[in-house]
Amino acid sequence: MEVKVLKNILGANEQLAEKNRLLLEQNGVFTLNLMSSPGAGKTSLILETIRRLKEKAKIGVIEGDISSSVDAEAVSKEGAPVIQINTGGSCHLDANMIGNALSSLPLGDIDLLFIENVGNLICPAGFALGENRRVILSSIPEGDDKPLKYPVMFHEADIVVLNKTDLLPYVKFDQDAFSRALKGINERLKIIPVSCTTGQGLSEWVSWLKTQMEKS
Amino acid sequence: MEVKVLKNILGANEQLAEKNRLLLEQNGVFTLNLMSSPGAGKTSLILETIRRLKEKAKIGVIEGDISSSVDAEAVSKEGAPVIQINTGGSCHLDANMIGNALSSLPLGDIDLLFIENVGNLICPAGFALGENRRVILSSIPEGDDKPLKYPVMFHEADIVVLNKTDLLPYVKFDQDAFSRALKGINERLKIIPVSCTTGQGLSEWVSWLKTQMEKS
Repeated sequence: MEVKVLKNILGANEQLAEKNRLLLEQNGVFTLNLMSSPGAGKTSLILETIRRLKEKAKIGVIEGDISSSVDAEAVSKEGAPVIQINTGGSCHLDANMIGNALSSLPLGDIDLLFIENVGNLICPAGFALGENRRVILSSIPEGDDKPLKYPVMFHEADIVVLNKTDLLPYVKFDQDAFSRALKGINERLKIIPVSCTTGQGLSEWVSWLKTQMEKS
Repeated sequence: MEVKVLKNILGANEQLAEKNRLLLEQNGVFTLNLMSSPGAGKTSLILETIRRLKEKAKIGVIEGDISSSVDAEAVSKEGAPVIQINTGGSCHLDANMIGNALSSLPLGDIDLLFIENVGNLICPAGFALGENRRVILSSIPEGDDKPLKYPVMFHEADIVVLNKTDLLPYVKFDQDAFSRALKGINERLKIIPVSCTTGQGLSEWVSWLKTQMEKS
């Protein structure tokens, strides 16, 4: 009985995600669902991407948080159209919330849409939003064992960006162990190490992103 | 209708938590529910506490993870009795899981029980386990805005331990902003800054813990 209820909820989310996908495709918007632990640097990655890509692509952002709008305010200062979703307690974004946000965005004027999910390495994995790619942002101080402990999230990813490489000299982090753990979960998964503080690796990230947008 | 189902689930969890609380009390076990983001250092804090307190208190540990048993293996090396719960996808521990784990622990031989919750700054807040105190572990590289973004978890806390102070010279973190945000959520909340790498602040943490155990 309970399983049936869950199945219906997921079914409804899938239907709404498909509707979002169609709307985004019709408007030529390439969409990323950016997921990570709290404080891994999702907003920093979005800000650095806007700074590097804004001459080449019109970028929009949907910010997801339980509470507060500090991230949306930071994005807004870069001149990008942004909608803040406050989930009011919910631990993930869902396709219905995104559908509502899309109706307030100038989709015809957006080439690339970032959806910054709620900081959570578990629950967002189960909810499609209508995105083209799922980006997992991991970060050095979280430790090299995250793929082992949160395998579902990493299994669903299209790419892993590994942030805060500038902290490598100061914390224990075995990059080979991290790569091995990822390969065990998802053989084809590419890792791009970056530092949003020093800029290291961001050109590789932007170049991956441009390739994906051209493919779509 | 859906609200009613949720209410029943929470009711059942509360009942089971109360059963755990009674069993732990009868056995003279003081219990901590340790919650944080992934990679904030929960296991490191447990290991450092065992090293500092093991002559004075018999310590047991319940490890909660979606997958893997790496943390339980690390604890076991310190000679403490430990049970690993793999939630198999669930984003939090619940009182039923803890009840099952308690039946496999030598409760008569334990004075202090750590329950390391699943790394998640949202969902565990809604599920009492039968603990005496709720400890939130935050960490410097996650940023000073975490209380603003995850207010429910911090509102429910009895104490906040702020880990990885050794990284303060290398990342942006405004300790006053962190304190102010916490005070706005929970006026009486104490913050203990620590570094499990250098040992800084751990004596204050251990001393707080001993005082709480004496009170109970």
